[in-house]
Amino acid sequence: MIGAGNLATNIGKALAGRGHDLLQIYSRTAESAERLAALLHSDATTSLAEVKDGADLYLVAVKDSVLADVARQLAEGHPDRLLVHTAGSMPMETLPTRRRGVLYPMQTFSKEREVNFREIPCFVEASETPDTERLKTLAQTISDKVYEADSEQRKYLHLAAVFCCNFVNHCYALSEKLLKENGGLPFDVMLPLIDETARKVHELSPQKAQTGPAVRWDTNVMEKQLQLLKDKPELQDIYNVLSKSIHLLT
Amino acid sequence: MIGAGNLATNIGKALAGRGHDLLQIYSRTAESAERLAALLHSDATTSLAEVKDGADLYLVAVKDSVLADVARQLAEGHPDRLLVHTAGSMPMETLPTRRRGVLYPMQTFSKEREVNFREIPCFVEASETPDTERLKTLAQTISDKVYEADSEQRKYLHLAAVFCCNFVNHCYALSEKLLKENGGLPFDVMLPLIDETARKVHELSPQKAQTGPAVRWDTNVMEKQLQLLKDKPELQDIYNVLSKSIHLLT
Repeated sequence: MIGAGNLATNIGKALAGRGHDLLQIYSRTAESAERLAALLHSDATTSLAEVKDGADLYLVAVKDSVLADVARQLAEGHPDRLLVHTAGSMPMETLPTRRRGVLYPMQTFSKEREVNFREIPCFVEASETPDTERLKTLAQTISDKVYEADSEQRKYLHLAAVFCCNFVNHCYALSEKLLKENGGLPFDVMLPLIDETARKVHELSPQKAQTGPAVRWDTNVMEKQLQLLKDKPELQDIYNVLSKSIHLLT
Repeated sequence: MIGAGNLATNIGKALAGRGHDLLQIYSRTAESAERLAALLHSDATTSLAEVKDGADLYLVAVKDSVLADVARQLAEGHPDRLLVHTAGSMPMETLPTRRRGVLYPMQTFSKEREVNFREIPCFVEASETPDTERLKTLAQTISDKVYEADSEQRKYLHLAAVFCCNFVNHCYALSEKLLKENGGLPFDVMLPLIDETARKVHELSPQKAQTGPAVRWDTNVMEKQLQLLKDKPELQDIYNVLSKSIHLLT
């Protein structure tokens, strides 16, 4: 396991929990490497040159910005290693070895929260067919939702995840801020609406599920709401572009 | 019950289910009035002049655009009626009677879905203190989450609901579209991420829960994602304004 951050920790725990043997944990800092190694009953190293040989695969769960460099060092003198990265937005070709692949678990990981890995959709690809099968089999031991997706599809998956998770969460954050600054109602009052909005799209397509002033193009309500944001041009921008986009999709 | 749309149907069913006596259902169209009256074991009318006298309260659940006019007709010759509307964005003063109030259930209602009214936050206010208490007591018979909120607070609640529900749902819709147009993965693959994003803010504040390229200000990923949207200037706008706003809140 190359890396000891949120994703490496979550996937490492899932793998160890299913009896996979994690030979060694690499992290740039000794503290992180040792913390995760202790958790997974594994060895720790802070040197890429000392990464053990002979693993079935090398799972590279590091920041996008260092992925190419870390992979290059892992491949140096070991052209036959099967390198597998976990990044949504990086093409498989970022890895320099002949045998290479991707295992992308599409989820939002925070230190403060345990996630149930079985429910996380995992998207796999590999340069060689037997490795694709190997990766699928491995992924299926930790997740019930394993799909094949090539690097092109994965780019759009990652973009769709930014909309469904990061942008959605930001809408939550803005609404928390609006409540705090205007009357002080607690953000908790929004949770039933948030939950129903999420539950609804399990049954209805989001396009069919839409409600509210923009889909009705109720300019009276929309203008009053823009007026409430008159000192927040940045929120007015968001309100306008999203409302227009809702209208376009209607 | 004045109105027979989604909201009138949902609130009417909740009230009837708790033993409240719904004297009469008014709707502009006979079909809607009769449908809901049959469901609630009530009478139907399509004439505001024939609305029965002597009800404890007149719940006006009609479209915002006709609320003032409907309320004026209900008040004509009946200045003592307690009129109560259900609209998030309309001030209580839209109603012309001395005794007036608001019962705003903050939820997204679609014909296709049953909602559990007990979980819906209801925000009440009234012009006279005894009516505020009456409305709170009434609301508590159908919901476990009853709050007092004046018209000013309610405006911001409704705006916060637009962010948490309509704008969130639109992010889902855009991601559905992106997947459909690029590789054809089904929208279902996003559901675990959508659910976890919603569950997370039950424990963490949305600001703390944020992940992804914008909060890290990872311009490398952001530029690649904008490139994927190069033929969709409207989606690029949304991507840009939301990413910048995430960054501002960090």
